[in-house]
Amino acid sequence: MRLAVLGAGAVGASVVELAADYGHSVTAFADSSSAVVDSDGIDAADALAAKRTDGVVGSDDPSDALSADYDVLVEATPTTLGDAEPGFGHVRTALERDRHVVLANKGPIAERFPEIRSLEAESAGEVRFGATVGGAMPVVTTIEDVGPSRISAMRGVLNGTANFVLSRMAAEGLDYEHVLAEAQDLGVAEADPSFDVDGTDAALKGVIVANVLDPDGGYTLADADVDGIEDLPGSMLELAKEDGRTIRLIVEFADGQVRVGPRLVPENAALAPAGTRNAVQLETEHAGQLDISGRGAGGAETASAVLSDVERLES
Amino acid sequence: MRLAVLGAGAVGASVVELAADYGHSVTAFADSSSAVVDSDGIDAADALAAKRTDGVVGSDDPSDALSADYDVLVEATPTTLGDAEPGFGHVRTALERDRHVVLANKGPIAERFPEIRSLEAESAGEVRFGATVGGAMPVVTTIEDVGPSRISAMRGVLNGTANFVLSRMAAEGLDYEHVLAEAQDLGVAEADPSFDVDGTDAALKGVIVANVLDPDGGYTLADADVDGIEDLPGSMLELAKEDGRTIRLIVEFADGQVRVGPRLVPENAALAPAGTRNAVQLETEHAGQLDISGRGAGGAETASAVLSDVERLES
Repeated sequence: MRLAVLGAGAVGASVVELAADYGHSVTAFADSSSAVVDSDGIDAADALAAKRTDGVVGSDDPSDALSADYDVLVEATPTTLGDAEPGFGHVRTALERDRHVVLANKGPIAERFPEIRSLEAESAGEVRFGATVGGAMPVVTTIEDVGPSRISAMRGVLNGTANFVLSRMAAEGLDYEHVLAEAQDLGVAEADPSFDVDGTDAALKGVIVANVLDPDGGYTLADADVDGIEDLPGSMLELAKEDGRTIRLIVEFADGQVRVGPRLVPENAALAPAGTRNAVQLETEHAGQLDISGRGAGGAETASAVLSDVERLES
Repeated sequence: MRLAVLGAGAVGASVVELAADYGHSVTAFADSSSAVVDSDGIDAADALAAKRTDGVVGSDDPSDALSADYDVLVEATPTTLGDAEPGFGHVRTALERDRHVVLANKGPIAERFPEIRSLEAESAGEVRFGATVGGAMPVVTTIEDVGPSRISAMRGVLNGTANFVLSRMAAEGLDYEHVLAEAQDLGVAEADPSFDVDGTDAALKGVIVANVLDPDGGYTLADADVDGIEDLPGSMLELAKEDGRTIRLIVEFADGQVRVGPRLVPENAALAPAGTRNAVQLETEHAGQLDISGRGAGGAETASAVLSDVERLES
């Protein structure tokens, strides 16, 4: 397949780097201010080097990437809320051109799912978004395989930064601010970690799962009930530990409601993964509880999920 | 889809019971001595009641099921070793008739994989066998999605009976014979539990995973290095516990070799599931370690995996 990759952050760059290894070519690659387009396939190494040294991927205009020759648009620009632009517009343009779309950007699926589905219904292109929830963990594909109507609830740890902070607070008896600063030093938390620690990122993933499990629900972030971990005192984790428990930022979808917040869980439970790992639990009708865990983020991890979605388009 | 279900044990019976709920009809259903065939769809409740009360599913001959009208043959007869008959012959007949085949029977995939693949290559029918490994746990589908060549190793707990026995031995400090008798009383272990406790069942699943991960390897049970748990003294579990570890019957495929045997694992590790639960770990190239756990067996659980495979045939 010929891929147009929009977004040159960790995920977009990794997709460009790994595409050939998965048997695909990249015919367009853009960040917010530049692009490189070549219908014979761009030179991935050149573009990635240009991005590192000059801050631009090439000398073309970003809009050229959208109108380039490609089979699949890979939407890996940063997640935005509300109208989910410019990601939503990219998806619409590709679908109107009867092209496939694979998203790593959570915005369009979390905020404008019914519109995406109706654009897809009018298009010869298909939309996939497994990479938006849990990176390479097979969350969306497992739900599709089991059948959304046969799953009554999802619970999960879907933000690695918040999980790292809570793990460290519990293990070391340290306070939130101290651990967050450490996480920022390690590169586990961003300079502005708001979306990770206030529950927004986990909520977006919960909303996406809600839209898969209940396709007519039209869930958006506004429907989610969200608490973060910023105000959690270290003493709460000590109290939990005395009882063999710990605290995790859990996102849940059940009974038509997405909820995110710190919850008590048994210390060694499937929903208490260590460090930055993620975990998801599905309650199924005929097969009991299914647990999946893995690395929920990371450039190569999420890129491999994007490329698995590309392969699914072919089958 | 119209299903012909061969085998009226827990899995076959559950497939017949659940088929309508998944939008399929059953046009043939057979056990080893009887069958019921109706191209308009059999009465599932009648056939299951007849099996319970009279020991036969209907008044037709088992061979009639194989020549009936159907789109998918569901092979759920008991797993046999070596020539894997009669299961293998059923699969061949269906593929020669250009029909799809979904297996819950491990024999043909573990013992005669290259022949199955070459019969499939000559047929318009497709073969799926996700239910043979870990019941409804998405093991085979996750390997397909990640890509077999991008997974370097698999480790797992894939026999619920052996896992139950080891869990109980560790928790109660009891000996093997005592716990096995208890498991038989509870219906967790069969009257003849040999294949579960001697490692054969786990090895068959390991061989199937090996055939998926290395499709040209042509692995069979004879290639596996297998130890069971029958001779494990309770004192070994006590010794492990003092060190924060426990013992599980682990099946591993790595470096071209299938190995099964009791192994030391950390007490709360992903590979130390509780009771009859199963767990699988995949080492991936780009996404680190993926963990999956769930109920690895059971009629309804395995039947739901069979029916997910049927849905995959349609996509």
